[in-house]
Amino acid sequence: KMLGRVLCTVVFMGALPSLVEVSQGHISVVLLGATGDLAKKYLWQGLFELYMDQVSSGHSFTFHGAALTALEPGQRLMFDVLKKLACPPDESPNRCAVLKDQFLKLSQYHQLKTAENYTALNREIETLLRQEGLQEAGRIFYFSVPPFAYTEIARHINSSCRPPPGAWLRVVLEKPFGHDLESAQQLAAELASFFREEEMYRVDHYLGKQAVAHILPFRDQNRQFLDAIWNRHHVERVEIVLKETVDAKGRTSFYEQYGVIRDVLQNHLTEALMFLTMELPANVSRAEEVLQCKLQAFQSLRGLEKRSAVLGQYQAYASQVQEELQKAQDYISTTPTFAGVLIHSDSLRWEGVPFLLTSGKALDERVGYIRVLFKNRAYCTQRETLRDAGYSQCKAKQIIFYIGHGALNTPAVLVSRNLFRPIMPEGSWREAVGQSDLYIFGQPLSDYYVYNPVKERDAYSILISNIYHGRKDFFITTENLLASWRFWTPLLNSVSHQPLRLYPGGVENQHLLDFEMVSGEVVFTLAEPVELLNPNRLMPSDYRTIQSKFRESPLVSAWSEDLISQLASDIEKTASRTVAHSGQFHLALSGGSSPVVLFQRLARHHYAFPWRHTHIWLVDERCVPLTDTESNFFSLHNHLLQSVRVPYFNVHPMPVHLNQRLCVEEDRGTEMYAKEIVALVANASFDLVLLGVGTDGHTASLFPESENGLEGAQTVVLTESPVKPHQRMSLSLPLINRARQVFVLVLGKGKHDITTLLSRVGHQPRKWPVSGVSPSSGQLVWYVDYEALLG
Amino acid sequence: KMLGRVLCTVVFMGALPSLVEVSQGHISVVLLGATGDLAKKYLWQGLFELYMDQVSSGHSFTFHGAALTALEPGQRLMFDVLKKLACPPDESPNRCAVLKDQFLKLSQYHQLKTAENYTALNREIETLLRQEGLQEAGRIFYFSVPPFAYTEIARHINSSCRPPPGAWLRVVLEKPFGHDLESAQQLAAELASFFREEEMYRVDHYLGKQAVAHILPFRDQNRQFLDAIWNRHHVERVEIVLKETVDAKGRTSFYEQYGVIRDVLQNHLTEALMFLTMELPANVSRAEEVLQCKLQAFQSLRGLEKRSAVLGQYQAYASQVQEELQKAQDYISTTPTFAGVLIHSDSLRWEGVPFLLTSGKALDERVGYIRVLFKNRAYCTQRETLRDAGYSQCKAKQIIFYIGHGALNTPAVLVSRNLFRPIMPEGSWREAVGQSDLYIFGQPLSDYYVYNPVKERDAYSILISNIYHGRKDFFITTENLLASWRFWTPLLNSVSHQPLRLYPGGVENQHLLDFEMVSGEVVFTLAEPVELLNPNRLMPSDYRTIQSKFRESPLVSAWSEDLISQLASDIEKTASRTVAHSGQFHLALSGGSSPVVLFQRLARHHYAFPWRHTHIWLVDERCVPLTDTESNFFSLHNHLLQSVRVPYFNVHPMPVHLNQRLCVEEDRGTEMYAKEIVALVANASFDLVLLGVGTDGHTASLFPESENGLEGAQTVVLTESPVKPHQRMSLSLPLINRARQVFVLVLGKGKHDITTLLSRVGHQPRKWPVSGVSPSSGQLVWYVDYEALLG
Repeated sequence: KMLGRVLCTVVFMGALPSLVEVSQGHISVVLLGATGDLAKKYLWQGLFELYMDQVSSGHSFTFHGAALTALEPGQRLMFDVLKKLACPPDESPNRCAVLKDQFLKLSQYHQLKTAENYTALNREIETLLRQEGLQEAGRIFYFSVPPFAYTEIARHINSSCRPPPGAWLRVVLEKPFGHDLESAQQLAAELASFFREEEMYRVDHYLGKQAVAHILPFRDQNRQFLDAIWNRHHVERVEIVLKETVDAKGRTSFYEQYGVIRDVLQNHLTEALMFLTMELPANVSRAEEVLQCKLQAFQSLRGLEKRSAVLGQYQAYASQVQEELQKAQDYISTTPTFAGVLIHSDSLRWEGVPFLLTSGKALDERVGYIRVLFKNRAYCTQRETLRDAGYSQCKAKQIIFYIGHGALNTPAVLVSRNLFRPIMPEGSWREAVGQSDLYIFGQPLSDYYVYNPVKERDAYSILISNIYHGRKDFFITTENLLASWRFWTPLLNSVSHQPLRLYPGGVENQHLLDFEMVSGEVVFTLAEPVELLNPNRLMPSDYRTIQSKFRESPLVSAWSEDLISQLASDIEKTASRTVAHSGQFHLALSGGSSPVVLFQRLARHHYAFPWRHTHIWLVDERCVPLTDTESNFFSLHNHLLQSVRVPYFNVHPMPVHLNQRLCVEEDRGTEMYAKEIVALVANASFDLVLLGVGTDGHTASLFPESENGLEGAQTVVLTESPVKPHQRMSLSLPLINRARQVFVLVLGKGKHDITTLLSRVGHQPRKWPVSGVSPSSGQLVWYVDYEALLG
Repeated sequence: KMLGRVLCTVVFMGALPSLVEVSQGHISVVLLGATGDLAKKYLWQGLFELYMDQVSSGHSFTFHGAALTALEPGQRLMFDVLKKLACPPDESPNRCAVLKDQFLKLSQYHQLKTAENYTALNREIETLLRQEGLQEAGRIFYFSVPPFAYTEIARHINSSCRPPPGAWLRVVLEKPFGHDLESAQQLAAELASFFREEEMYRVDHYLGKQAVAHILPFRDQNRQFLDAIWNRHHVERVEIVLKETVDAKGRTSFYEQYGVIRDVLQNHLTEALMFLTMELPANVSRAEEVLQCKLQAFQSLRGLEKRSAVLGQYQAYASQVQEELQKAQDYISTTPTFAGVLIHSDSLRWEGVPFLLTSGKALDERVGYIRVLFKNRAYCTQRETLRDAGYSQCKAKQIIFYIGHGALNTPAVLVSRNLFRPIMPEGSWREAVGQSDLYIFGQPLSDYYVYNPVKERDAYSILISNIYHGRKDFFITTENLLASWRFWTPLLNSVSHQPLRLYPGGVENQHLLDFEMVSGEVVFTLAEPVELLNPNRLMPSDYRTIQSKFRESPLVSAWSEDLISQLASDIEKTASRTVAHSGQFHLALSGGSSPVVLFQRLARHHYAFPWRHTHIWLVDERCVPLTDTESNFFSLHNHLLQSVRVPYFNVHPMPVHLNQRLCVEEDRGTEMYAKEIVALVANASFDLVLLGVGTDGHTASLFPESENGLEGAQTVVLTESPVKPHQRMSLSLPLINRARQVFVLVLGKGKHDITTLLSRVGHQPRKWPVSGVSPSSGQLVWYVDYEALLG
């Protein structure tokens, strides 16, 4: 009987307390995929170390390896692995040998293939426990299997292997956790039908890396120094980097589906990013608080756009894919093997600080680090060569969490000596000495306080210990996972046809993968070198903007992102020209969803826009309070006004909410707005009016067959929308047509039918109000994206 | 006859054209102070070089040295100087010798002491010209004399020495041009009674330094590269530095009155600053346009505060002053010999970019430079040691105008190779080669494109040539001078009692004079080292804030600047606490002049203020449109709101302007505001109300004997002010007294009487409305500066 053997052995050990007396209950660990690569390399070793650490904790253990392989060969394979388990260097060889012997005796192989196999396993555990008269504390099921097998295993565990009430169940899952937001949601929903959230432990082994795991404790223990500087006023930039020298050879069947963003950035680097940007909970050892703060940090991330990333592919990748996946010679892979991504957080703390996430294969070195570079705010009066080397506020100030490999070749925490001497937990980190000839990030190692772990531990060993301790903050919750996919999926979609920069690999890459930030975007520093261009690769020339005619007016057309950036530039040009000429710029903006991306682009990329001299008017408004999320003004404020500096007096929301009521005619809001326009806008002729088009041909809030606003002298009108909220306020068509310039923005497949129709019909404003847009002496330009134009 | 000799000699030269035929007229140069130090060292040499350059220009010249010394000894002294005139290295020795001989013959000494002396000089010039039958082109009077002599000399020149109509007069003035704004205005007014603006050439010899003189041409010729980067988005910081190794020994009688700010920063460094920050005129060779743009750049400078500067004094200075000025042993000098000043421009182009001006005596090296450091926006994927040395976007990017001395020991223009290869005028600047072992600003010289002048020229020689050419943009106009004093005088006044950091001098200074920027201010990096403290020096302990009681409420008192900074901090603390507790912060602010400095401080120094969750209310308003400069809201917007991010919805100006008219009762603005308060502020109890006090004891817009607002149920009232604009809107005393916290700010000597009175009287709101401020359940704190408190 296994358990009997445990007890015997422990009694035989002598030095260890008798488990019977102090028993905290029994834990069964089931490792699914017990003979796979991950299990061989890390998991069994981690379990062995857990056992060594916890043998005197009061818990008793059994370890169940499981796989599809039949019992005998499986047993043999598994015990071949177990025999090679290593003793940690700081462990006494004697104790280790004894414990290893026990561990082997406590470990057993099971074939888990059919429903009956699972029932049998469950029965076996129950029987053993009953026979030994032990309470069951809990069961750990470690899924070290491909994701397609998850659902079935989960179903079996849920139906046959749940521990009795009072004991816990922990299932440990390995990535990938989906391929994008949709697939991740689907997988999460499936798992949720078998397990409760608190039962699931999704592994991101980066969270077990010692330097990464120490970010939060470091921030917590050094609050006295960091409180003042851990923010946008002091941090210049943050780099989160994982560089590899290996390439994807032999793994292309996996890699070709994932690429570097899904493989490294979405999970490992994003988790590190969260540890840096999240607000610190009062108590960093409370998993619940940590997870909550981390989730909040996701909410502050600014959405990624196509131009937030630079992507590359090492040159040999295409032929490796062709060979390993038996693809044709002209097969083109669009999978990136290198990515540099610029991320911004819009939190008060981090607004404006660039976070650069970089990873790639076939690079010059293997290294992982997180580098926080502080702004240099000092001026050193004395010449550099005449200064004490020891102390200078003019040297770079940085904090580096060095994950491993690279020049240091060990996990480390480095803090520039001119910042502060950090408080480090003495038991687990110790100050390093020597090695002063090394340069790290442009500075000799002697410029830093350097700390290494007292005991270097593998990430899996740390994670397995945390599963045992139920520390859920070392794992990825469902909410966390989906937040991450929600953040990354738009980028993944928008770059799926992006051209990739080819790079030769290794040190030959030289400056080819250097990139730089240009007004909120990233671009490669060097122009695409002609000799590296693969003449066969997809270089979609149709990405460019085309210029043509629509309804006898100029038409600008492109894919939506390029169209928006063109439109934003054109608006800025008009604004600058108008301000230079007349000192002010009167801009009337429409509500709806299409302009939102435009507003964001104007807010984020057009720093030179003459906002101080711009007046903002509304083309139309819904009759709701301005602070209502349905309000056009609210959306405009949210996406544009709060980020730029338009003087308060120059902002002109429509007066839809007077005397605590909405659009009541006798409150005369329309007259008020009309008077305001006349008072401020020369000739009531706006410099630029931005319009959209509805699928029914409406524009502004002028709907087909509207009683008001399509003609007549009234310049601001109340109208009725066929959809809620019904009541609207709108500029009239005659007023719009007084404008010096009118831009009409049409985006998306949904607008294809109306676009096609408009290309054929004449001036029929009663049927299709937008067809009545025809500035009497101004210019009309159509901005229509390819989806609306071509369907 | 002198002129006869000129013509003879020219004819004798042969190679030179006959002046008679091509004559452009005659120029008389009068050097006042002809035997002084400046004349000896630079001016005569500059005049000689002018002569050599212009001998064939068609102008004929005579040179008149003048001083108080009698004719004979003066003549001897002057010709001793002239004999030592040097030939420039690129001049043929033959030609030079001939020209020097001519120059000596054309030069004459005059005693200029009495009115008769001036009349005699004038007569002599007229006679000579008449005899030679030459037209007079113009006269240059170079004032190389102490400033106290200016007025009298000017009067004599104006009354006796003006050239005849058709010929010009140019008077050249040497600094100092006053001691502060007032004295400069006075001096300027005096000079203006003798000379027209275009006749005056005020010398700042820095404008003749080759590197400084080339800033504008460089910006002009490299527009194609600089247009995109010469702004706040790309420039990280700018350093304008003049370091000296010498000290003030032997010159303390001058220096003790001036100090480093007046001696170097107000003039030389400020001029360089202007060349960097000014907008480029379309044509940089048009003096008028250059001067206009420079003047505009002054308007954009943000005012300096006490904390904009760090000041020091070398240790030996005190004893040098005691010795040279025969002061007592306990004499304390407050004259700074070192200054580091942080300057901001609020122009769109430069907003937020720190400009650091530094100068000092007894430093480690002699050097002058202007360094523009660009932001590093690149990420280099390849490890540094594995990169080509030649090209990297990750190296620092800078443009340096190297004025002279220091490691390079020559004027130079340096541009980082990763920026661009500058366009330089070939005739005057040439690319330097060699010297690659030198490091300049942390980088090997080989990282830069380096240019040196083809011909090194002394500043005075350049300036004298520009006087001759009438290039007024090389000189300081009256407007320019006064703009500079207007900028510097407030700092000079506010630091006149500032403690100075003592420094040992030379390389011993080490890090003692390093300073850094901390939220818009500068501070020395190292705490004051105890061993260097002179126990006798003035360390006004009364600078600190004191806490006491006033009218039975807490009183905070300090000098006004410290008081404001304390008040701003206290408001921020209240705001953060309140937002943390209830999610929003309702702040009601008063109009008037006292809060303006507070608003500015909040805008510039309190980056962590929770503006997004703050609601801004007005305590009172004048019945004028909100965009009127008299409006309280306008001032609040101008000094605070436009610099911070309060959501539009959270800003609550008083509705004094409804239906295009002001404070008409039937428009019911007071009711509207009252309703808005009730709707948004819990219990109509503001979190913080900031009040002021008038000399008549009014607060908010509640005046003595007011019919409304001192009591009763109405919460927002219309009132009458004894001063214009009479009509006001105000919160009522009962509403104010509902607040959770009320701060009353009292500043300035003018408030001393009312402060004294208030300290004695009880609760008498009808007589002194502010005496009725007494929050029913909230807290009242008085912030009264020393001037108001102590008179």
